[in-house]
Amino acid sequence: MPQNAHTVPINFATDPSRYRHWRLDCAGTVAALTLDVDPAGGLFPGTELKLNSYDLGVDIELADAVTRLRFEHPEVRAVVLRSGKANVFCAGANIGALARASHAHKVNFCKFTNETRLAIEDASGHSGQSYLAALGGTAAGGGYELALACDWIMLIDDRRSVVSLPELALLGVLPGTGGLTRLTDKRRVRRDRADLFCASEEGARGARALDWRLVDEIVTPSSWDEKVAERARALAATSDRPQDAKGIALPALEHEHADDAITYRHVAVALDRGGRRATITVRGPTGVPGDLAGVHAAGAGFWPLAMARELDDAILHLRFNEPELGIIVFRSEGDPVAVLAADALLEAHRGDWLVREIRLLLKRVFKRIDVTSRSLFALIEPGSCFAGSLAELAFAADRALMFAGTRAGDNRRPATLTLSPLNLGAYPMGNDLTRLATRFLGDPDGLANAAARVGDALTAEEAEALGLVTASYDEVDWDEEIRLTLEERASFSADALTGLEANLRFPGPETMETRIFARLSAWQNWIFQRPNAIGEEGTLKRYGTGLRPRFDPERV
Amino acid sequence: MPQNAHTVPINFATDPSRYRHWRLDCAGTVAALTLDVDPAGGLFPGTELKLNSYDLGVDIELADAVTRLRFEHPEVRAVVLRSGKANVFCAGANIGALARASHAHKVNFCKFTNETRLAIEDASGHSGQSYLAALGGTAAGGGYELALACDWIMLIDDRRSVVSLPELALLGVLPGTGGLTRLTDKRRVRRDRADLFCASEEGARGARALDWRLVDEIVTPSSWDEKVAERARALAATSDRPQDAKGIALPALEHEHADDAITYRHVAVALDRGGRRATITVRGPTGVPGDLAGVHAAGAGFWPLAMARELDDAILHLRFNEPELGIIVFRSEGDPVAVLAADALLEAHRGDWLVREIRLLLKRVFKRIDVTSRSLFALIEPGSCFAGSLAELAFAADRALMFAGTRAGDNRRPATLTLSPLNLGAYPMGNDLTRLATRFLGDPDGLANAAARVGDALTAEEAEALGLVTASYDEVDWDEEIRLTLEERASFSADALTGLEANLRFPGPETMETRIFARLSAWQNWIFQRPNAIGEEGTLKRYGTGLRPRFDPERV
Repeated sequence: MPQNAHTVPINFATDPSRYRHWRLDCAGTVAALTLDVDPAGGLFPGTELKLNSYDLGVDIELADAVTRLRFEHPEVRAVVLRSGKANVFCAGANIGALARASHAHKVNFCKFTNETRLAIEDASGHSGQSYLAALGGTAAGGGYELALACDWIMLIDDRRSVVSLPELALLGVLPGTGGLTRLTDKRRVRRDRADLFCASEEGARGARALDWRLVDEIVTPSSWDEKVAERARALAATSDRPQDAKGIALPALEHEHADDAITYRHVAVALDRGGRRATITVRGPTGVPGDLAGVHAAGAGFWPLAMARELDDAILHLRFNEPELGIIVFRSEGDPVAVLAADALLEAHRGDWLVREIRLLLKRVFKRIDVTSRSLFALIEPGSCFAGSLAELAFAADRALMFAGTRAGDNRRPATLTLSPLNLGAYPMGNDLTRLATRFLGDPDGLANAAARVGDALTAEEAEALGLVTASYDEVDWDEEIRLTLEERASFSADALTGLEANLRFPGPETMETRIFARLSAWQNWIFQRPNAIGEEGTLKRYGTGLRPRFDPERV
Repeated sequence: MPQNAHTVPINFATDPSRYRHWRLDCAGTVAALTLDVDPAGGLFPGTELKLNSYDLGVDIELADAVTRLRFEHPEVRAVVLRSGKANVFCAGANIGALARASHAHKVNFCKFTNETRLAIEDASGHSGQSYLAALGGTAAGGGYELALACDWIMLIDDRRSVVSLPELALLGVLPGTGGLTRLTDKRRVRRDRADLFCASEEGARGARALDWRLVDEIVTPSSWDEKVAERARALAATSDRPQDAKGIALPALEHEHADDAITYRHVAVALDRGGRRATITVRGPTGVPGDLAGVHAAGAGFWPLAMARELDDAILHLRFNEPELGIIVFRSEGDPVAVLAADALLEAHRGDWLVREIRLLLKRVFKRIDVTSRSLFALIEPGSCFAGSLAELAFAADRALMFAGTRAGDNRRPATLTLSPLNLGAYPMGNDLTRLATRFLGDPDGLANAAARVGDALTAEEAEALGLVTASYDEVDWDEEIRLTLEERASFSADALTGLEANLRFPGPETMETRIFARLSAWQNWIFQRPNAIGEEGTLKRYGTGLRPRFDPERV
């Protein structure tokens, strides 16, 4: 059994007043997000976070800041990422923490940091909030990868500050947060130059960094502050964010943790350790505002936003703190009509900045589910409300199973599945297709037939005939089929399931995002298992000891 | 150190007279390729190849047959893949052989079998030779994956024959020869059905197999032979292969093996075990035929064909038999004008069936190089002939280094690099872009500038300025730079290099082919390292023992 470096549950809730590693300063249209890592503030005891190196705790704060900037600061149009330490922007992931972490934690840590960097790109791509990496000192490894997620990279030209990806040369692993993919696919660095750069411990500075497209601008120290401010203003000027809007505060989520359950307001998680599964039940809204003003007034209490934040927290909790629960079962309870009413608000007011943010957050939460390495089942039962946005959970699942008819003596509504316009475009997957388009990749007519039924409460028979669910069972078979299915799934090799799902969930086209999660991450996961990295004489074990690693030279 | 199951070098040379597992019967336009595995004919001692299961030796014969059908049988327009055993088409890769193989052998085995299946698709896609999988019995695992590589899959509808991918359920690994990718991307099986199918040991038969797109046609036993013959004729009718052409025999390659060298006619391999590298020197042609008739008369002796076959054999030898040589250095010697003359023939007569086959073989050999997990360097030196087709080796390399000027006292021609029209389209990579287009992904002007210089013998300065080589050095620096570069490369973690190169060589778009080699294979390699598969209580160790595997349930 792998050793986990952490014994207390990891908690993803934070806010700027509690940050230990970042400072968020908002002043008008430009915000500054300053990395100033507290070396003693590592998530796990015994880790010293030197040189602005980070562990998961640092990235949890960054993820929080990126989200809050979007919801709480509609006025912010550009964000400057900078360092609070002299001569160093960020030294990347902390190697001591990485070396001591279990394999599962390494992989989950990289996945989360990747999601945070993609959230930055999502903010600049869709939310009118540009990110400027102001590298006033060296950005190494994950530090440079953080810069690569920004719209514009400025490097101080002081003859000493470099950008580098020294993972290969120093650590015998790969850049784990998209660095390779962004070098070639986002910045279009020529592949042999990328090879040279990634094989060099020293990195590149000044004119070469610019010439090779590794940074966008180099600036002398004397004009640094002025040029950074100027560039931030220029980026801010391209934004479509509102002028005089009022932000929405994101208060801490209310929830209760018991040994076998987590209860939020709209989301309940039941933990079945014997059955190796977690059941996430999403409760639909009990009412929705009548208009856009009502949405703003409800703020973080507006059901789609509140539900999305809770669901996100639940997924992260399961990923990091419940690694042996290999199955997530999605259920829902409530009135589909109310869910559709919330969707109608999200669709009618899509041009509003807050509604846009809520849609984008839902998109990111569903994407987080897509890349969660647990088997996903959706059970669509009487009394459920898999409609519109919530139906995405059924389309994200590896299988969606639907109850046909009702149970004797059960007076709840028979199960229905209802599409809303949001299923047809609001929530693209990492492959840039909607889940429905991904589902019907080989069957464009099937997609059109389903789309034609937007708004119709589809019975199990109809949903199955339309190809929207995997199978349906009536009262006679349901309990037994579900039990067998979940027991069988729990009996399979956890690793093989992870690989299977990572392949089958993303048919068809690939994007930079899917390449980061698949090509890059799968290779990194492999390397993270190999003796050359984690053996007694491997790079991660020997890093910082003064001893050189010993490698098995065999090429696989 | 991993244990290799083989101690004698693996030899890739064979011909139909020596096949132990396949029979090739050519009769007019339709050929039959019959799998009838000799259970005692395993490549490694102690392996019993039951139920038409295969090991590398079986696939070496298949790869040979696929190539010979193209060159030796221009009359063959359709190939029927069938089984010589009752009730079973093919049970897939032999698990005993797989379980005993080293990790490196497992990975190389899967890579080679993937290349063979892609060669089948290349024959049907570009060579006018369609493949029909005639599943007269069950096709399981790799057996069904072989069928998936064919144009048309017929399954006998006898209430017992199934297609299946039982790897997850039976073995705790993934289908390793493209099965998952071809299910979703080629056959467009809906993803939840693919999940159901891949989680089932039993597979699918009859109407369900057809309904789910797993096969193209089901046929009752009574009409089986007739329907197969009919379908083969229909496929043959779509071919553009010539009517009365004479095939080209592919004789065994002449070569000499010494401990530190392999010498073919046009290719020489120097093995430097201390330096952990192999240097492959390709000698250019000494003369080329004057016309197409001369090309046909030269047959397998025509330089591009002979060189391609030798290079392919050398690469496979290094992959399987020299795993510790982590670097391949490409050199060339000869007259660039003669290489360009050969290219001119390949371009002028591209409509000729034999010339087409030679171009397609070169394409496949270069692709084999692209996915070879060794660091690739091209050294472009005085007296070399990196022109046209041979320049692809420089563009396939992770870095191409060019000698500027000449050495004092050396009267050979200064190094030049010359493009031919073939560099602009004849040899797409797995990503469906040429190596030049891949190189200039971020710089379309750079691509146009390079393309404008087709036919010009570019000096080192010109080639570097055009972005066609990574760097150039003159006499003063060359020896030291090359020594340092190769020594540094040899010092890095072999695994991290494999991952790095697998990412950087394939920027930009992905295809089914790159997805098979990257997404699927990288996950499979990871699974092949995990205790759940290869631990003492893992699936591969316990398969066939009657004991159930024990799994660590942790999800990563």
